[in-house]
Amino acid sequence: MLDDKLLRELGTLKDQVRFSKKFTIDKDFDNVVVAGMGGSGIVGRIFSELYSEKPVEVVSDYQLPKYANDRTLVIGVSYSGNTEETISVLNQAQKNNCITVAITSGGKISGMGFQTVLIPGGLQPRSSLGYMLMPILSTFLDITNNVRDATFERLKNMDEDHSKEEMLALEIFKGQRIPVIMGFFPFSWVAYRWKTQFNENSKIMAFSNYFPELNHNETMAIGDTFRRDMFEYIAFRGSSNNRIEKRIEETSKITGVDFYQVTAEGNSIIEKLFFLVHYGDYVSYHLAKLRNVDPQDVSKIELLKKRLA
Amino acid sequence: MLDDKLLRELGTLKDQVRFSKKFTIDKDFDNVVVAGMGGSGIVGRIFSELYSEKPVEVVSDYQLPKYANDRTLVIGVSYSGNTEETISVLNQAQKNNCITVAITSGGKISGMGFQTVLIPGGLQPRSSLGYMLMPILSTFLDITNNVRDATFERLKNMDEDHSKEEMLALEIFKGQRIPVIMGFFPFSWVAYRWKTQFNENSKIMAFSNYFPELNHNETMAIGDTFRRDMFEYIAFRGSSNNRIEKRIEETSKITGVDFYQVTAEGNSIIEKLFFLVHYGDYVSYHLAKLRNVDPQDVSKIELLKKRLA
Repeated sequence: MLDDKLLRELGTLKDQVRFSKKFTIDKDFDNVVVAGMGGSGIVGRIFSELYSEKPVEVVSDYQLPKYANDRTLVIGVSYSGNTEETISVLNQAQKNNCITVAITSGGKISGMGFQTVLIPGGLQPRSSLGYMLMPILSTFLDITNNVRDATFERLKNMDEDHSKEEMLALEIFKGQRIPVIMGFFPFSWVAYRWKTQFNENSKIMAFSNYFPELNHNETMAIGDTFRRDMFEYIAFRGSSNNRIEKRIEETSKITGVDFYQVTAEGNSIIEKLFFLVHYGDYVSYHLAKLRNVDPQDVSKIELLKKRLA
Repeated sequence: MLDDKLLRELGTLKDQVRFSKKFTIDKDFDNVVVAGMGGSGIVGRIFSELYSEKPVEVVSDYQLPKYANDRTLVIGVSYSGNTEETISVLNQAQKNNCITVAITSGGKISGMGFQTVLIPGGLQPRSSLGYMLMPILSTFLDITNNVRDATFERLKNMDEDHSKEEMLALEIFKGQRIPVIMGFFPFSWVAYRWKTQFNENSKIMAFSNYFPELNHNETMAIGDTFRRDMFEYIAFRGSSNNRIEKRIEETSKITGVDFYQVTAEGNSIIEKLFFLVHYGDYVSYHLAKLRNVDPQDVSKIELLKKRLA
């Protein structure tokens, strides 16, 4: 079957959580810039929600912020090592004497002379989230082996039984619905990760937002929009902030629209994070199967890169 | 007519550009946090794309980042002065001895004892973008009177003739389409502003993304999604980066989908910025008229606030 490869790749996420390489940062820094696009860029976004000891700016674009200097830690993340936007930022980082490090499986970036965490190649960038995220988290947060083990076990269980995820995929497929994923801190960017997995694996449009921000705009549209029944609202649940939980419930009541609820399971932020990530992985995978599209295929993205070369 | 008030409010944007109050910041700071939600929060987002002398983090949520200390400038933006999330962040800023200032038309925040730029009340927050944005830009960027005058004239012309914007509204209305606005630096958040204007004024779902990030995910979905014909893709044009211009053209070709193009007009970043903002204002206004909904109405957002009180 065409789609077996992506399924196998999804099965490696649990092992990626145990990937223990990290950076040695022996200089003081005042702020952090993480450069990366798409499946690599999401790594910086997720990190920025988990780490708040210093300002973190994520650049998914060509330009390094002007303030970046020798007290700025720049982390370039590019699975292929050949992403033109990320290379552009890293070149500027070099000129500005930033403290620059990289995560990549090879390519040009691996030869730029930075301290580099080399990760295994041969996967889709979006299937390597753990390999790209864990070196950053391991460097800056204290992630115990217990947390890694519990996360491993949870993901392993999901690999063995993803029937709930398949059910959600079926619901989306039957209604030919466009998913709108509603996250909350510190998982707002996990909602965006779902969006991108729907885009790349299932080849459907999908969007994300988060509570409480969406209460200041989208809340006026959900119940009254045209094409009202074409959206599948998916709300993450299990915030430790009860104001957020209450917002989710009241928003559903006030708009008159039911949200499909996915509660973050786990005993730590890291475990909940990977649970939610993997849940979205499997929903998007099953939706690809139902639609009979190849979840592995990213030919249009590749074609665009070629035409721009 | 029900909707006259919002139309009158839109007509004040040109004058807001000449609003010249600013902050006196006499302490050194290392980084900036802008706190604000929805129509107030967008102010910080737009600022963060125009200013890169220091790290700027925009918080549209409850929590101040841990790093914020007496070398952090915190700018609270809340039109009403009563936004619970923003007040929560400002309370934490006070505890952390941050250098804290505020922009508001009144409410609780005006009594918290911060250096405050008071702006005129009686408008919708989303109709006060200029009042909220200009004090920040005037404090940190050099905006000449020539730029303000040219921007005034351009917006005035748009107030007198918004037939192009009406045409786009009509196209969206006829197809009952969901807008997807595609921005680029430094106008990525202006695309989000359009999204929120469609949500609040027109009561329809709408979404934004930006080049080049969308080339790493959404590009796989645009041509192949189900519900393919229900989206109206609106691409900003006129980037000074020709890689971006080329990306827009190639993305349309590769996905086989035409994008409605709105070219940023003006001789300065500020003029282009307000041109794009105002363009979206009028499209969303006309769409509300076509749908026969009240663009002024934000009753569900208000009801939610009440239920949470």
